Amino acid sequence: MSWIASSFMGRKGVAKGKPGKKHALTEKKQGQYHYVYGPYEKPVLTINPGDIVSAETRDAFGGAIKTTKDLPSKVLNFPYVNPQNGPIFVKGAEKGDVLAVHIHSIEPRGEQPVGTTALIPEFGGLVGTSTTAMLNKPLPEVVKKMKVTSKGVEFSKRVTLPYEPFIGTLGVSPEIEAVLSLQPDYWGGNMDLPDVAPGAIVYFPVQTKGAYLFVGDCHARQGDGELCGVAVEMPATATFQVDLIKGWSIPGVRLETEEMIMSIGSARPMEDAARMAYRDLIRWMQADYGFDETEAYFLATQAGRIRVGNMVDPKYSLGASMLKAYIK
Amino acid sequence: MSWIASSFMGRKGVAKGKPGKKHALTEKKQGQYHYVYGPYEKPVLTINPGDIVSAETRDAFGGAIKTTKDLPSKVLNFPYVNPQNGPIFVKGAEKGDVLAVHIHSIEPRGEQPVGTTALIPEFGGLVGTSTTAMLNKPLPEVVKKMKVTSKGVEFSKRVTLPYEPFIGTLGVSPEIEAVLSLQPDYWGGNMDLPDVAPGAIVYFPVQTKGAYLFVGDCHARQGDGELCGVAVEMPATATFQVDLIKGWSIPGVRLETEEMIMSIGSARPMEDAARMAYRDLIRWMQADYGFDETEAYFLATQAGRIRVGNMVDPKYSLGASMLKAYIK
Amino acid sequence: MSWIASSFMGRKGVAKGKPGKKHALTEKKQGQYHYVYGPYEKPVLTINPGDIVSAETRDAFGGAIKTTKDLPSKVLNFPYVNPQNGPIFVKGAEKGDVLAVHIHSIEPRGEQPVGTTALIPEFGGLVGTSTTAMLNKPLPEVVKKMKVTSKGVEFSKRVTLPYEPFIGTLGVSPEIEAVLSLQPDYWGGNMDLPDVAPGAIVYFPVQTKGAYLFVGDCHARQGDGELCGVAVEMPATATFQVDLIKGWSIPGVRLETEEMIMSIGSARPMEDAARMAYRDLIRWMQADYGFDETEAYFLATQAGRIRVGNMVDPKYSLGASMLKAYIK
Amino acid sequence: MSWIASSFMGRKGVAKGKPGKKHALTEKKQGQYHYVYGPYEKPVLTINPGDIVSAETRDAFGGAIKTTKDLPSKVLNFPYVNPQNGPIFVKGAEKGDVLAVHIHSIEPRGEQPVGTTALIPEFGGLVGTSTTAMLNKPLPEVVKKMKVTSKGVEFSKRVTLPYEPFIGTLGVSPEIEAVLSLQPDYWGGNMDLPDVAPGAIVYFPVQTKGAYLFVGDCHARQGDGELCGVAVEMPATATFQVDLIKGWSIPGVRLETEEMIMSIGSARPMEDAARMAYRDLIRWMQADYGFDETEAYFLATQAGRIRVGNMVDPKYSLGASMLKAYIK
Repeated sequence: MSWIASSFMGRKGVAKGKPGKKHALTEKKQGQYHYVYGPYEKPVLTINPGDIVSAETRDAFGGAIKTTKDLPSKVLNFPYVNPQNGPIFVKGAEKGDVLAVHIHSIEPRGEQPVGTTALIPEFGGLVGTSTTAMLNKPLPEVVKKMKVTSKGVEFSKRVTLPYEPFIGTLGVSPEIEAVLSLQPDYWGGNMDLPDVAPGAIVYFPVQTKGAYLFVGDCHARQGDGELCGVAVEMPATATFQVDLIKGWSIPGVRLETEEMIMSIGSARPMEDAARMAYRDLIRWMQADYGFDETEAYFLATQAGRIRVGNMVDPKYSLGASMLKAYIK
Repeated sequence: MSWIASSFMGRKGVAKGKPGKKHALTEKKQGQYHYVYGPYEKPVLTINPGDIVSAETRDAFGGAIKTTKDLPSKVLNFPYVNPQNGPIFVKGAEKGDVLAVHIHSIEPRGEQPVGTTALIPEFGGLVGTSTTAMLNKPLPEVVKKMKVTSKGVEFSKRVTLPYEPFIGTLGVSPEIEAVLSLQPDYWGGNMDLPDVAPGAIVYFPVQTKGAYLFVGDCHARQGDGELCGVAVEMPATATFQVDLIKGWSIPGVRLETEEMIMSIGSARPMEDAARMAYRDLIRWMQADYGFDETEAYFLATQAGRIRVGNMVDPKYSLGASMLKAYIK
Repeated sequence: MSWIASSFMGRKGVAKGKPGKKHALTEKKQGQYHYVYGPYEKPVLTINPGDIVSAETRDAFGGAIKTTKDLPSKVLNFPYVNPQNGPIFVKGAEKGDVLAVHIHSIEPRGEQPVGTTALIPEFGGLVGTSTTAMLNKPLPEVVKKMKVTSKGVEFSKRVTLPYEPFIGTLGVSPEIEAVLSLQPDYWGGNMDLPDVAPGAIVYFPVQTKGAYLFVGDCHARQGDGELCGVAVEMPATATFQVDLIKGWSIPGVRLETEEMIMSIGSARPMEDAARMAYRDLIRWMQADYGFDETEAYFLATQAGRIRVGNMVDPKYSLGASMLKAYIK
Repeated sequence: MSWIASSFMGRKGVAKGKPGKKHALTEKKQGQYHYVYGPYEKPVLTINPGDIVSAETRDAFGGAIKTTKDLPSKVLNFPYVNPQNGPIFVKGAEKGDVLAVHIHSIEPRGEQPVGTTALIPEFGGLVGTSTTAMLNKPLPEVVKKMKVTSKGVEFSKRVTLPYEPFIGTLGVSPEIEAVLSLQPDYWGGNMDLPDVAPGAIVYFPVQTKGAYLFVGDCHARQGDGELCGVAVEMPATATFQVDLIKGWSIPGVRLETEEMIMSIGSARPMEDAARMAYRDLIRWMQADYGFDETEAYFLATQAGRIRVGNMVDPKYSLGASMLKAYIK
């Protein structure tokens, strides 16, 4: 039996983690892509808990960077970047519920070289930006294209990297806000966390009726921190199963795999994101694993793990995790 | 002749800083107040450059804290806090323009004691919060009410403080986002900066047609940083004149008084807000006062001033200023 | 009668704030200058509480920048920068006491142009540094020399700034550490806070027998934050009276003038420095002015002031202050 | 053949990574332990490059916490915590060289339960501290003792964790400073990074003649960030081989294992530590692996890894690493 049955989704989900109807959210069906996470757009798809969606996502540039000559400052039109599929309306979802998204697969689509990364002026973790405002001159703008298949990312003639895809931007709508898809927050969004990968179940706190699920920004792979601000961006087909959990309240995004549980914090400075993530992990261990606060704090100290998703977005996203082997 | 004639508003404004028609934006006319800065609501008022608006603002709690027994955790319903008047549509305003708001006066209104401050659990500059997440127990919840008149703020029997009112939340709409009125950003919003006071002209970068001006959250006074997160909040009548500047591009909020110019940055950590503010001040000195970058950087080093607006909101707001006497 | 009599120094000092013997700590008497605050060097001077010292301080570059051609990267030899006079042994001082330093005057000395500022590669508030590590190219290195007299700082032909001198680096020795004079901390050091000026009394928590007072790095003036990292540096004669307070314990540096009291915090990120300063101010108001914690927190919220000393040193220094008029 | 021969130590070391004479630095031989990293104490041992040292380290509390009743606030005497063995004088070492320390083994010593962790008031990653100053009440003080053997850490009846020991505090002396052993910096010190473990080679930039190597603070294991501020502290016998590299200049601490190279940054806020680590990793890839800056920046973005050592010390320490498989 799969571990899914014993997951929070399997035990608490309205559909008990069982797969339901399949939906294809093609480019055509999507029509207009969206640039904010919010409740102000009409759903493109309505599903039941358990249903599976295959979404044709665009890359973070909306496909505008076709060759290394398509410099971001010329072909991009801020804030119309990082296009999102959705919103997907989940029947029965209400504020206070939890939406579970079990990621099945992520496949690149489109013409090779399908992977793109770039140095964008005043953007990235090792340069002055609009926020970490500097007087230094920006680095030169550079675009790099890479062939991406399930066998690997052809970074250069010298280096081929494993294909380890994940969803960069995934989440539900805030209640009354509409926030750029570039930003992560407690509802998800642009977390750029490599753990949001096939096999994982991601949990989101529902803020509005129908949950309004958005998805986009798939990455063929990425290092910790997404250092220059741009992963191996690619258009993709992302397939995931959605379930709905009633009676489980979470303050932010959580994630589960067969091996571990993870709480995700998004904030600046980076230590605040780490604090958010670890505090929620401790509270999760208290609520669902029978630890008292002190023991959970001690165990997180001796066995917790931190993954730095990004150190470049409007808020940095970090995941704090604990192996299930230590808390069973 | 008033200094207004020589201000940026007076020299560049469509109305040349000359007062136009008066509008009363009463509670009744406002009807529903708003909790986000965004382009998705219908304007409540349409004005021409030069027009003067008197807005009946509510306090940050929407008037829900009437006595010291009305504890915030009981009477407030997040995110429905910090209600705003508006949006006000300014004819002719388009993305890329600058909206000038010259504040004329701020008067308390309503029954005494009209001023409110409070300790709210997990909110404030010296306590753990949802962002600076801690395991410590919150401080006890406390509400303090104060009589406020133009003669002073009766803080306690022992202490009366000067009445030095300002507008806590003021700004234009983002282009496609709708962001909580609790948050400051490059379009303004909840900057909680005491310089946004009668006599000052505040400049905002217009992001959307009509500018969509919002206003609310008047304070009878406040110290630097708004330390516990709640100033002397009060319902008020705020009167201000609006002008529109074409052909002047600014990346964020700026402010001008007879004595000084100021650039405002909103970010976390606090040094990033300071960097944003100072960099923009230097660029302003380059563009409009004839300094080269190095001389402006040197002069800001020797004569710049920093005002900490708040150190409690989702982003901290700081103003970097230069006396006009030094750059004339 | 001077306010000094009612100051903490006047009321609690061993010498009751009364001036004692005068000492000249000339360059010759100093001999070797020091580059760390620590207990490992032999005192150059031993004084009694009440004694007055006139110290011939060097500028932060040890006088190595004589013309605009003396580029810092060529003439400076890190870590041998920011030379300090001292240590001065104060008789009777022991760990747990407070050392009071009442600054009388600061006069420039040496050949004009006596003032120096500079852009130093990878140093400053608006550039990438060794800590805020960036890949951007550094700004060009620049030196600026200025004539400085008590009438003003001749910044340029266009701009003359007021002469508002202060001591950039002042403090006592840590107990067992020896820390670069470039760094501020709870014992003082390189706070670069313009309030450390003639007229002020600065209080330091003594960590070691004799206190080991160091002083150096006088500035003819400086803006908030010392933005490019270099104020108007000058060699000077700094005259100050030293007193010793028994039975008053403070966790960090405090300061008093006729008008206000101030607590100083040094930390990164900047909000931590602000938190340290404000928390100590509140505790001071509790201990010596009869407020309870909540009232002190509320009053700091409505009437506290923040001064940003520097945003460029290894730790940023901020002062949180309260007018005496509000707490008398 | 071992990978050591192809390591930087093996290729560049004076001793070519070959083991030399063995030295036992027992408690008795050490005599007085030290609490600062500095050049002011006399060496306890002089060795040649290649020599192997077995040091009997004390735990971070100097053995003062023997039972769960020995509360830190009662038995510790700040700043006399985190005692260090050393300084060890390495013949031939001069400023500008690199000291290589190849860790062979770490064994617990002393009476069981030999492992200690604790909640210390105002210390830790999820509580207000002297730096992140809060008004909240501290958590209750708690001590936890654990049996530690090479088979595991007996965290509780329910949980046994793997024995994964490392050295918490290791480094060379600064040139003229003497800095608390609680603090990490570019010379090493209290990095609390689990990668400083048996099998790894750690590289330090020598600042002073003889290098003055210090070592202490062994941990039986620790999670990322050392969340509550105290790992599984234990007295230990740490055995390591020391080599000396001439003609290789590094700005901070680096580390190498058979699988990866890592650069370590120590700073606040946490993003600055990440920036320092990643920038140095990129420069290392440029200098020694033939990448240009842009390719190194891109590769770090797609394949770099971040390990959070501690988020509790005076500076946070992070390691940025790259698999050798990707850069061979």
